[in-house]
Amino acid sequence: MSELNVRAGELDAADELAGIRKQFVLDAVSDHAADAAGVYLDGNSLGALPAAVPGRLDDVVRRQWGALRIRSWDESGWWTAPERIGDRIAPLVGAATGQIVVGDSTSVNVFKALVGAVRLVSGEHGDRTRDEILVDATTFPTDGYIAGSAARLTGCTLRPVTPAEVPDALSARTAAVLLNHVDYRTGRLHDLPSLTAAVHAAGAVAVWDLCHSAGALPVGLDEHGVDLAVGCTYKYLNGGPGSPAYLYVRQDLQDRFDSPLPGWNSHAEPFGMRSEYAPASGALRGRVGTPDILSMLALEAALEVWDGVSIEAVRAKSLALTDFFLECVSAYVPQGRVESLTPVAHEERGSQVALRCDDAGGVMKRLIERGVVGDFRRPDVLRFGFTPLYVGFGDVERAARVLAETLGDLAG
Amino acid sequence: MSELNVRAGELDAADELAGIRKQFVLDAVSDHAADAAGVYLDGNSLGALPAAVPGRLDDVVRRQWGALRIRSWDESGWWTAPERIGDRIAPLVGAATGQIVVGDSTSVNVFKALVGAVRLVSGEHGDRTRDEILVDATTFPTDGYIAGSAARLTGCTLRPVTPAEVPDALSARTAAVLLNHVDYRTGRLHDLPSLTAAVHAAGAVAVWDLCHSAGALPVGLDEHGVDLAVGCTYKYLNGGPGSPAYLYVRQDLQDRFDSPLPGWNSHAEPFGMRSEYAPASGALRGRVGTPDILSMLALEAALEVWDGVSIEAVRAKSLALTDFFLECVSAYVPQGRVESLTPVAHEERGSQVALRCDDAGGVMKRLIERGVVGDFRRPDVLRFGFTPLYVGFGDVERAARVLAETLGDLAG
Repeated sequence: MSELNVRAGELDAADELAGIRKQFVLDAVSDHAADAAGVYLDGNSLGALPAAVPGRLDDVVRRQWGALRIRSWDESGWWTAPERIGDRIAPLVGAATGQIVVGDSTSVNVFKALVGAVRLVSGEHGDRTRDEILVDATTFPTDGYIAGSAARLTGCTLRPVTPAEVPDALSARTAAVLLNHVDYRTGRLHDLPSLTAAVHAAGAVAVWDLCHSAGALPVGLDEHGVDLAVGCTYKYLNGGPGSPAYLYVRQDLQDRFDSPLPGWNSHAEPFGMRSEYAPASGALRGRVGTPDILSMLALEAALEVWDGVSIEAVRAKSLALTDFFLECVSAYVPQGRVESLTPVAHEERGSQVALRCDDAGGVMKRLIERGVVGDFRRPDVLRFGFTPLYVGFGDVERAARVLAETLGDLAG
Repeated sequence: MSELNVRAGELDAADELAGIRKQFVLDAVSDHAADAAGVYLDGNSLGALPAAVPGRLDDVVRRQWGALRIRSWDESGWWTAPERIGDRIAPLVGAATGQIVVGDSTSVNVFKALVGAVRLVSGEHGDRTRDEILVDATTFPTDGYIAGSAARLTGCTLRPVTPAEVPDALSARTAAVLLNHVDYRTGRLHDLPSLTAAVHAAGAVAVWDLCHSAGALPVGLDEHGVDLAVGCTYKYLNGGPGSPAYLYVRQDLQDRFDSPLPGWNSHAEPFGMRSEYAPASGALRGRVGTPDILSMLALEAALEVWDGVSIEAVRAKSLALTDFFLECVSAYVPQGRVESLTPVAHEERGSQVALRCDDAGGVMKRLIERGVVGDFRRPDVLRFGFTPLYVGFGDVERAARVLAETLGDLAG
């Protein structure tokens, strides 16, 4: 046993979150021998299955849908699920209740947030001197595509900038700024408090995409005065493939939030079936159409793993995991064979490590064959995500060791 | 046994679709004695559970998500589900393959379709002489709300009209017309072929909402040259609560379809992660964000009940069911106590019967207590939906009889 192997065991023994792992299904795939002792480091793409989900979903399908049918909209709490589950996510991102609704995809929520943001800084008659949207040019592309559409439809100009360029790019023309909290590729954590403050100082609206931070580290939406935020629920929140996203609208902005997707679920009196639209008060006005109940209630069951878990403890373990992974990679992998794109400083790091590597696609394929599942991002990045609720230090050491062996095999 | 009761038995015995009923779960709710011999006439709001769904979804959750995890995007066909399931819906609405994608809510798809429609008649530089959107004023309200938003964002004026007024309202200013195929309240079927032709004669784009017709009657999208269409899947398609909706974009318009929600799933090369947006070719450009896999694959399983079923046979049974219901109501319910809002003429009738009735809310409550489940639409409508795949003529006779008894009890 190597020294790092021994230390992994000690770290696992001292891990206060270690017991949560048993609330997840991390079984091997029966027909895939290599998974037998697998390490799943792709929870930043699709979180593992919480053990409570299959049974809950079976009840939703067989009893709530199959037997109660239409009555379940009231009796099984279907109708109020978007805001109820939003309130369950709220403490994980530092939000008081009543500010988050769950539903639609992240892309659709980015659209609601950005058009809503532009309207927040418009005059009463839609006139505006602020006609520029700044968008994180380094971000997951869909945010840029949707921001382009929001700009086009609101008569704004889209200006791609890096997060570092934001302070200088802000001006009296800036309407809204859309930023990713953690860069999906490099794992870099951006400074939400200071960037939000800079956006506000310029009189603009700050919109944050939390896809790669929520559930992995404290966000502090209320504390830092973020205006609008969106995020997905299938990464660190383990909601399942394509599970519904969420929209945060800060309490004091809700009465002025003017959604570009005013579906009947956002109406003040949805069953009044009135031809005139009147928005509901509160976060409810971020709803659109009929909520997707099967996925939504699977997510609700998935969120139960967070009962009694502090996001600060999760963050501490996340940093310990990525630190230890970088240390193991340094120890095992020959110098120069990979290069970390993930910042060394804790305050700049999310919960993943991105390694630049020649033939990264081929390397990741071999890693997966050997049961170490991360993912490949073009052109040359190996991406490893560390979900503190179910990844342990032994997993980390093993992943680094298999990576070194794989690179050795390929070199040999 | 009454004469109608005998006839119901004969009609059921002769029903070529009768055998399909056993593919649905129509069990009683165990803790609700009144449901013991229930009649479910609310499939136009939430379709009953197809028996294949629970097992399939359990496999999706436990094996595809729980064990294969991220690999399922390829190996379990998750990534291509929106277009694959769209192709499964296509024959039910008279569309060739490659024109329908599944995903998002109906409201979101109405938004894509209407903004896309306005752009189809705009000049290359977004200039337009056509700046008016006509919307069915009698329709389900969300269509009007979303149409208002689409008009506002594209600089158009929204003009609510009844379907009968459309031919006179069309002008050189008309950009798009959004109509419901079947009115959700009265069950009136609108004349899709002639209204579409009138819209085209005026040089405008025809957008149809098929929520209350798809799966109940032939639509003939291709045959009648409809431009764009949307619909939900949780009514006559039995996809489950809030299951994803769909968007139809006619083949020859796809290259010019310009979505206001260009999420990464609609990109020509989604995993290229390029900062510049380039739309995919074909119906794929109606996709937006990550598809909601649990709900989508539940829908896919639900659609298997359609194997070998002709929509013409479904339509014939639907008309026979609503005819028989109206006949039973006439025979059992005292003259003047209820008034049918549903057209007598077959060519003007969908698959539901709406009865105006004093104290409709209280009457429906009692009906439900006695196991006859329809729904109440304000201010005074009893709504009964007839899903030909699982409703029989005996159900129809019983529902009318229980209605008559309930009205008699209330009068007594």
